[in-house]
Amino acid sequence: MLLNCDLGESFGYWKIEADPLVMPHIDMANIACGYHAGDPCVMVKTVALAKTCNVKIGAHPSYPDKQGFGRRSMALSRDEIEAFVIYQLGALVGICQSQGCKMSYVKPHGALYNDMMKDDHVLQGIFAAIKKFDKNLPLLMMATPKNQSFRNLASKHGINVLFEAFADRAYDDQGLLLARTEEGAVLTSSKAIMKQVQQLAQHGTVTSINGRTITLEADTLCVHGDNAQAVEQIIQLKTLLKKP
Amino acid sequence: MLLNCDLGESFGYWKIEADPLVMPHIDMANIACGYHAGDPCVMVKTVALAKTCNVKIGAHPSYPDKQGFGRRSMALSRDEIEAFVIYQLGALVGICQSQGCKMSYVKPHGALYNDMMKDDHVLQGIFAAIKKFDKNLPLLMMATPKNQSFRNLASKHGINVLFEAFADRAYDDQGLLLARTEEGAVLTSSKAIMKQVQQLAQHGTVTSINGRTITLEADTLCVHGDNAQAVEQIIQLKTLLKKP
Amino acid sequence: MLLNCDLGESFGYWKIEADPLVMPHIDMANIACGYHAGDPCVMVKTVALAKTCNVKIGAHPSYPDKQGFGRRSMALSRDEIEAFVIYQLGALVGICQSQGCKMSYVKPHGALYNDMMKDDHVLQGIFAAIKKFDKNLPLLMMATPKNQSFRNLASKHGINVLFEAFADRAYDDQGLLLARTEEGAVLTSSKAIMKQVQQLAQHGTVTSINGRTITLEADTLCVHGDNAQAVEQIIQLKTLLKKP
Amino acid sequence: MLLNCDLGESFGYWKIEADPLVMPHIDMANIACGYHAGDPCVMVKTVALAKTCNVKIGAHPSYPDKQGFGRRSMALSRDEIEAFVIYQLGALVGICQSQGCKMSYVKPHGALYNDMMKDDHVLQGIFAAIKKFDKNLPLLMMATPKNQSFRNLASKHGINVLFEAFADRAYDDQGLLLARTEEGAVLTSSKAIMKQVQQLAQHGTVTSINGRTITLEADTLCVHGDNAQAVEQIIQLKTLLKKP
Repeated sequence: MLLNCDLGESFGYWKIEADPLVMPHIDMANIACGYHAGDPCVMVKTVALAKTCNVKIGAHPSYPDKQGFGRRSMALSRDEIEAFVIYQLGALVGICQSQGCKMSYVKPHGALYNDMMKDDHVLQGIFAAIKKFDKNLPLLMMATPKNQSFRNLASKHGINVLFEAFADRAYDDQGLLLARTEEGAVLTSSKAIMKQVQQLAQHGTVTSINGRTITLEADTLCVHGDNAQAVEQIIQLKTLLKKP
Repeated sequence: MLLNCDLGESFGYWKIEADPLVMPHIDMANIACGYHAGDPCVMVKTVALAKTCNVKIGAHPSYPDKQGFGRRSMALSRDEIEAFVIYQLGALVGICQSQGCKMSYVKPHGALYNDMMKDDHVLQGIFAAIKKFDKNLPLLMMATPKNQSFRNLASKHGINVLFEAFADRAYDDQGLLLARTEEGAVLTSSKAIMKQVQQLAQHGTVTSINGRTITLEADTLCVHGDNAQAVEQIIQLKTLLKKP
Repeated sequence: MLLNCDLGESFGYWKIEADPLVMPHIDMANIACGYHAGDPCVMVKTVALAKTCNVKIGAHPSYPDKQGFGRRSMALSRDEIEAFVIYQLGALVGICQSQGCKMSYVKPHGALYNDMMKDDHVLQGIFAAIKKFDKNLPLLMMATPKNQSFRNLASKHGINVLFEAFADRAYDDQGLLLARTEEGAVLTSSKAIMKQVQQLAQHGTVTSINGRTITLEADTLCVHGDNAQAVEQIIQLKTLLKKP
Repeated sequence: MLLNCDLGESFGYWKIEADPLVMPHIDMANIACGYHAGDPCVMVKTVALAKTCNVKIGAHPSYPDKQGFGRRSMALSRDEIEAFVIYQLGALVGICQSQGCKMSYVKPHGALYNDMMKDDHVLQGIFAAIKKFDKNLPLLMMATPKNQSFRNLASKHGINVLFEAFADRAYDDQGLLLARTEEGAVLTSSKAIMKQVQQLAQHGTVTSINGRTITLEADTLCVHGDNAQAVEQIIQLKTLLKKP
């Protein structure tokens, strides 16, 4: 199971200092495209860093909302979503191309990601963007018990889908993320996180908040890397996942 | 001599209605990339219109200043200019690619265009952007008596340059545009405009405000298309230039 | 019944030319505060025009979304709405104050207006903003059969409410605006518009799309003024409303 | 001599964590108004913090350039500067007013500050903004040997001026800040900083990089507060300045 992480989320003066610490330990970098974070200079640096570390580059497109960091839903039409995603994919590919490297996948950010999982017009807008831009780019979605259903929808457009699980989030009995407002939604102990990841990697299951065993098929694990403690945890996870 | 025109300069609610009237009569469309004007939806429509009309698509990158329409100089570093231009080129190529068409050249907009003609670090930033992004894209610059000097600078980066003259602007004795603050800077009579264009096309010269004949080598003619009267003039110019 | 109109909705290069034609014929100008439209220069000009025409100035705050013209819902928290509205009120008051005139009321724009009518946390955020900023500013809301209920909510914060009806929109049997997606939602004939306004002014009622008579108490009538035809209609309405 | 510090320079997701550590130790908080940094929510929090700490609130208006943090010159006209400054003053006053506190002075930020010291049209735009908005707000400028000349210019508009010196910047023989590109431009040793401040406070002079004694009249001292080390230094300076 590969590790993916949101990176390149500095903006102008405001720097997320941990990027160079995180990059060497992950496999896939979801790079902000200037809509929720990042700017052309940040993108240039982040792509260069990913290239140096031999990490796969993914586009991390968002709703156009820097002040809200792309975390607020916006009522965009299907066509707006399609156009906005293509714009961001193109911008990041341009920066990759100028450094002789390539972009490998698409993972929507924040509210766009959440809305994609539940609103069909959002998902269709993203499918259409990828189909028209480059249908060889897989779309990274959230692993749930409905993976096959999403895979089927995507295949109608000739698009591949990858799924990610979360190392530090509790799951409910439906195999969905427990809402952050619920108690225990975020796993804080390193032991609990390691246990969840090991189970995912070995058995393809998670244990829900109520103790049920849920099958969850995941190609990659989403980790967070915005501070020093987070980096430590990524290194532990990487070590764990490398074990035979 | 081909006609080039700035298009796709609507933004969200604010529409420049003349685009569909202008597009059929020009040869090269300089399409805004979202920094001074345009947004992903406007870009999608404008690229589609250019494709339908079989018009060459050029990127029209700008300083990041929508409120000022890219007409205000900004003190950006060479590296910032490089990154900002690559970002915009990529975004427009993305939209072209999603419609199965291609981008053919780069013409900076407004203050970025003017600064490129006089500030070396701006020109070098633009050269670097094109060189890294795709050195087959020619850069469209203002025709002056110094064409060869700019051609030489560009060739050091392996880049081609095209030059444009202006149909409706008076020239000074140095072959530069008379500043807009000077009397007579803008040609308003259709007759004067036609005369200047005919002279450019037939003899490769303009007559300066003081009556001197100045050699001015131009590959293309910049026309304006933001209102109905302008469209009429473009049609007249097109007819004039088509004559044997 | 006073006429209110959204004005000052130019932005930088993009001009709504009708403002000076409309202003002399209305009573209340809802002036954009830079979030969906307007910029400080546009605001300065619009306030000056309102002052010259002796028209009441109202703030027209919006979600922060220029590309979407404030017409797309955004999932802002109550506190964000409060802060964003106060910011915009302050900015417009600053410009009024610099010209020796005053701001008289608040009318939210677009999606913020619609959300205020149906989402309690949006309404509460707006109430809180006005209460803290200046509780003497009345809030302009949409006239519906629930006027009294909104009046009661507002009075808990010590705030006054004004209600507006629409000249050119059809109403459903609940006294709400017929959705724009429905046939007949927008009245296009001048005759139908005049009839609806006359009925509102004389009897305080509208006739719904299904022929029912609905009581609708309105302090002011919202008119649109973004083109020359609209101006003509405003003049007709003004004449109609002035008749004894 | 009072201590002034730029605060409220977080933006959305990007937090400058030191604000609550710095505020208790300064006298005047220059609060970002949303153009180079800050947003309405950040402004609300920062004003509340200043109020709690009984610190004077100053507006810190900027060029409209968040990505460049207001540090890049922009070629704005006098009228644009006037309107942009009024807008920002109004917005911050709105937030102050909603918390029952007041704004006491104006200190332009970054490139706008630097341009004000050397370009007359920028200074005149700022003077006009303050004069029209509230002429009781003093303008905070850089202390140089030309203080009296600026005082005279301001008094023509009925405006007061305050001057600030810098604790950690070396001065040249003209009493201007040594350019950051020069060696020794920034004082890094705590000892050198304390010495410069003590000399300013006791004698109203600085020793230039070449050893000359320059008279420099300053009402306040600009300190930086964006990290923990900076906070430590502010506390030392405060202690030093409090000594009889």
